[in-house]
Amino acid sequence: MLPRAYEGQDCSIAGALGVVGDRWTLLVLREAFLRNHRFEDMQRRLGVARNVLTDRLARLVEDGLLERVRYQERPERFEYRLTEKGLDLWPVIVALMQWGDRHRDDGRRPMVLYHRGCEGEVDDRRMCTACGAALNPGDVEAVRDGARRRAMAPA
Amino acid sequence: MLPRAYEGQDCSIAGALGVVGDRWTLLVLREAFLRNHRFEDMQRRLGVARNVLTDRLARLVEDGLLERVRYQERPERFEYRLTEKGLDLWPVIVALMQWGDRHRDDGRRPMVLYHRGCEGEVDDRRMCTACGAALNPGDVEAVRDGARRRAMAPA
Repeated sequence: MLPRAYEGQDCSIAGALGVVGDRWTLLVLREAFLRNHRFEDMQRRLGVARNVLTDRLARLVEDGLLERVRYQERPERFEYRLTEKGLDLWPVIVALMQWGDRHRDDGRRPMVLYHRGCEGEVDDRRMCTACGAALNPGDVEAVRDGARRRAMAPA
Repeated sequence: MLPRAYEGQDCSIAGALGVVGDRWTLLVLREAFLRNHRFEDMQRRLGVARNVLTDRLARLVEDGLLERVRYQERPERFEYRLTEKGLDLWPVIVALMQWGDRHRDDGRRPMVLYHRGCEGEVDDRRMCTACGAALNPGDVEAVRDGARRRAMAPA
């Protein structure tokens, strides 16, 4: 844990890490960006312990990055959707992915982000490599190993 | 810790978080970007336990993000400088800072990143708000609360 008081404390990087400075938290958010909004899907894909996932989801809701939305009445079922505050983390997630791609030992890119309907890719400033447009989450689809394209943004 | 095997494992986000998915690690890198290269300076500014800082620095050297450089011979003294791989994390750190700024309760920005010699600021795609240049770490200076400008990049 970070101490309450240190010289470099008045810092928005430290503030951000206080909210998302945990690997599971960012991977849960990754799943939300990939439209996997439901507990069971997230749990299966992440292989995370249920109590850990429950904890991270509750914190993300409390911190206002996800909202819990009912999608079924009987029995009641809920899913987790990104708020504006959560969507604002997209640049962090894209930057982490691009750094990870660049420094992989195998030189592969497990997932590629395309400008939807354009064939250009998302460059390191989140601009389209083909048309130059400044891209936002809703403009982009994530393609894994040539599989069916998936939106990298919530519906 | 992340498990060895999970469905979403083949992922550069998870790979990146395996290296930098720790708050202290990213704050140590922040210090290196702010030209605080020495153990004693980092320790004082971060208020981190010495053994924790020693551990994180050793890992960052092992992972190739920092290099240990001798700056004095008698007695021998070393400092920690960003490698290319470490410098490549700049977009992640800038994105975290901008998200933190945007969602602070007090609306302040503890530190502002300027395009050196231009007065423009670094926007959310790391372009200059004044001249539109695509900025890299060496082009930018970080100013804290109007204090003397500091480089946000290693010398």
